Amino acid sequence: MNIVENRYGKSKVRVARIVRGKDRHDFHEMTVAIALEGDFDSSYRDGDNSLVLPTDTMKHTVYALAQDPAVEQPESFGLLLARHFLGHLRHLRGVKVDIYGHLWSRKGPYSFTAGPPHRRIAKIVATHDKVTVESGVAGYLMMKTTGSAFEGFLRDEYTTLLEAPDRILATSLDATWLHDGNADWDKVMKLITETFTAHASKSVQHTLYAIGEAVLKSEPIERIHLKMPNKHYLPTKHADVFTPTDEPHGLIEAVLSR
Amino acid sequence: MNIVENRYGKSKVRVARIVRGKDRHDFHEMTVAIALEGDFDSSYRDGDNSLVLPTDTMKHTVYALAQDPAVEQPESFGLLLARHFLGHLRHLRGVKVDIYGHLWSRKGPYSFTAGPPHRRIAKIVATHDKVTVESGVAGYLMMKTTGSAFEGFLRDEYTTLLEAPDRILATSLDATWLHDGNADWDKVMKLITETFTAHASKSVQHTLYAIGEAVLKSEPIERIHLKMPNKHYLPTKHADVFTPTDEPHGLIEAVLSR
Amino acid sequence: MNIVENRYGKSKVRVARIVRGKDRHDFHEMTVAIALEGDFDSSYRDGDNSLVLPTDTMKHTVYALAQDPAVEQPESFGLLLARHFLGHLRHLRGVKVDIYGHLWSRKGPYSFTAGPPHRRIAKIVATHDKVTVESGVAGYLMMKTTGSAFEGFLRDEYTTLLEAPDRILATSLDATWLHDGNADWDKVMKLITETFTAHASKSVQHTLYAIGEAVLKSEPIERIHLKMPNKHYLPTKHADVFTPTDEPHGLIEAVLSR
Amino acid sequence: MNIVENRYGKSKVRVARIVRGKDRHDFHEMTVAIALEGDFDSSYRDGDNSLVLPTDTMKHTVYALAQDPAVEQPESFGLLLARHFLGHLRHLRGVKVDIYGHLWSRKGPYSFTAGPPHRRIAKIVATHDKVTVESGVAGYLMMKTTGSAFEGFLRDEYTTLLEAPDRILATSLDATWLHDGNADWDKVMKLITETFTAHASKSVQHTLYAIGEAVLKSEPIERIHLKMPNKHYLPTKHADVFTPTDEPHGLIEAVLSR
Repeated sequence: MNIVENRYGKSKVRVARIVRGKDRHDFHEMTVAIALEGDFDSSYRDGDNSLVLPTDTMKHTVYALAQDPAVEQPESFGLLLARHFLGHLRHLRGVKVDIYGHLWSRKGPYSFTAGPPHRRIAKIVATHDKVTVESGVAGYLMMKTTGSAFEGFLRDEYTTLLEAPDRILATSLDATWLHDGNADWDKVMKLITETFTAHASKSVQHTLYAIGEAVLKSEPIERIHLKMPNKHYLPTKHADVFTPTDEPHGLIEAVLSR
Repeated sequence: MNIVENRYGKSKVRVARIVRGKDRHDFHEMTVAIALEGDFDSSYRDGDNSLVLPTDTMKHTVYALAQDPAVEQPESFGLLLARHFLGHLRHLRGVKVDIYGHLWSRKGPYSFTAGPPHRRIAKIVATHDKVTVESGVAGYLMMKTTGSAFEGFLRDEYTTLLEAPDRILATSLDATWLHDGNADWDKVMKLITETFTAHASKSVQHTLYAIGEAVLKSEPIERIHLKMPNKHYLPTKHADVFTPTDEPHGLIEAVLSR
Repeated sequence: MNIVENRYGKSKVRVARIVRGKDRHDFHEMTVAIALEGDFDSSYRDGDNSLVLPTDTMKHTVYALAQDPAVEQPESFGLLLARHFLGHLRHLRGVKVDIYGHLWSRKGPYSFTAGPPHRRIAKIVATHDKVTVESGVAGYLMMKTTGSAFEGFLRDEYTTLLEAPDRILATSLDATWLHDGNADWDKVMKLITETFTAHASKSVQHTLYAIGEAVLKSEPIERIHLKMPNKHYLPTKHADVFTPTDEPHGLIEAVLSR
Repeated sequence: MNIVENRYGKSKVRVARIVRGKDRHDFHEMTVAIALEGDFDSSYRDGDNSLVLPTDTMKHTVYALAQDPAVEQPESFGLLLARHFLGHLRHLRGVKVDIYGHLWSRKGPYSFTAGPPHRRIAKIVATHDKVTVESGVAGYLMMKTTGSAFEGFLRDEYTTLLEAPDRILATSLDATWLHDGNADWDKVMKLITETFTAHASKSVQHTLYAIGEAVLKSEPIERIHLKMPNKHYLPTKHADVFTPTDEPHGLIEAVLSR
């Protein structure tokens, strides 16, 4: 039996890197796939792993090399990775690196949003006697690289989380607000974005409350429902390098009224 | 056995509407869900459908009412729908309407894009002797409400498609371009967007070619691979009202070189 | 500028076919992608469509040829399609057909289910005083090719739906049931499946009620919440050939108690 | 400003547990969401976290309690979790636990599959001179709780992976096979399943090769393309408790011929 072609590697390695400037941060987020080609026949035929670099190591290599300035462009970061593997593993014939760069739009020196496609929402509940109208947004991605802490929390036997005086805060906001029809959608979105950006956050709860307060104060809104998943960027052992993760995520939710 | 609660309706009704101004078009795209509540017990217990308005009718009602100026805000369109059903069906207790508004960003008087999150791509293939770098984009949504035709095509026994002198053109572009490392990603994206916007399109193929030509002429790019699904906006029987659809879609693909 | 390679076609064409035997039906559901290759340079360069068969025609061809017995295997149906296009369009160099066959498991002469992965659900709500436990299922796909009607419904100015004395009924059931902890999950699932299979359905509401009744009668369950989207298989103009569609869908929902 | 309602917790906590019997293993996989309610106003208003148990702790609690026999039913595991939080945190008013149980079908004492809906594939490439037919499968989930090792692999400076003499092996197989039209799809699927189940695996590569060998030996197949993502079940610090993860994943791929 012939092995006509073979390839192995790690897919969907997610990595983020903060590059700290004097008065602002740049932020690079990518999803990386690496595939190695070469003479790995003995691993297939005999289960001999002596030439097989674990795919787990490829993941750690992505995290480690994300400290290099090459991380600023997906092309240069891909080249750095390809050359690393070709240089270290002489039994390779070739390396493929595929990178998806996530596109964040700057909203402040340390804050960013993504999209649309988030979506604008309208919810109408009508009976013969009464009509309520809620407006809202679904899936509005916001992220900030500093200005967010989580400290002084309750600890129990299962608690291993470290105090975080300065962490990345990211969320995909779902919100609906009840109003008389006169609240301006664009103004509410602007208030949400600006409050998220400016707030000295002690927790997601704390920022959620600040957002609700800003909106209820300035717009003719009676009640607002805010749902803020805590989209974790887990630290790696390399400074300023994080791994974004979708599962699990925190979920903070509250209804605020005047 | 008691029927404690019941509700029925139509979900994921997609509708789009062009509002034609003198020198520009507005474009409204929404996904609508309608749920009716009332005394429908006999339909559950006895299969008596005499009070059951088909959910198919709700869909057609969305299309028909999308001609109303209320379509310009999701809230006012939702109210119009809720009042329509409450007014026509006296056996209803209540109506719920949920609307997701799709957010398009204007790029010209008749053209729009959405996102990010589309994604920037880098593809590296490296051996000990040779390295190729491709840059690209995945999932870049572009749409125009005019300046696109499809006429004079081949017909056979299964062809029912009408000649279209003026149709909506929408795509989710995937593209990769091979270069020496000196092509500027933002410039390529700008060329793609501007060519899509300005081109007097006779088909997706025709626009794909124009985009490739614009990019190869202006940037140090050797070869470009363009993949343009034709994301159909199907006409309804109501002028300027369309139903967007994901399945099936056309798929036009070519590799162009200098 | 050279056109190095090009290809065009229709993707995600969904088609279903009932093959009626004496005492049972076979059911074939597929998603088809077709791509044509040949000398289409003039369509790209000049927007000359005279050799371009519309992708819409490819869709109708899939529906028409689904009446052939070749539909029973994805391989033979793919060959039939490929030969059709090569035979009719002499300017083609090649055709690619990719087919995904959906796998339904027979539950009766006219009924089928798919999955897992549907999912088993448990919902616990606990306070210091009170605990409620609900069990359930999410995304349970069931389908029957006969034994389902929808007739005698309310009509208004927007109603175009035809009376259906015999139609396909398909759903993706979400259900949760409140019990004292002694309801057997496997037994409830069996009751749901058997009732769906055996019921002479006059509407989704009617079948939902029958399922609720069967479960509440036989198991120590206080209340059941049933949510049954009506997953439409739209008729084509070819007998026994349907096009499955995800958007829009009906949504029927009720809470039943003893 | 009033806090009308509030809730916080952790969603999408994925956990798996092997229960080792004498001659067979049971396997329980769930996705858990926990939400706590109580007087957390000070955390919202003042950013006072002293009553806030981190959502990270909820995750670790799920892992720890998965060692309890209650894990065998989603209802009993949900109750165990709810009682744990109510018992330990006297400031709570209530707890909600939502569990999705993944449904695996047993294929042997230590092996399982899930689905359909995986999908059957047919790929036809036809020119006027030549036709090739490939058959295949997409997304076929297989998992085994023992009989899989990964040891003796290459190590470098970034390698932290431990030798694994006995690990969970899980994949979502994509495969296509080239044949003359006489290969029986059901027989190939049976060979794939049985070989995966029986093979004493030294790596994914090793099992991939064994599957290819079994198929090429027994069926009139010329060439087979196998793609096996390594869907990781990461060990926790609790014996027999794992956390399933989608990102990143290994990807092993080869084409084998007679």
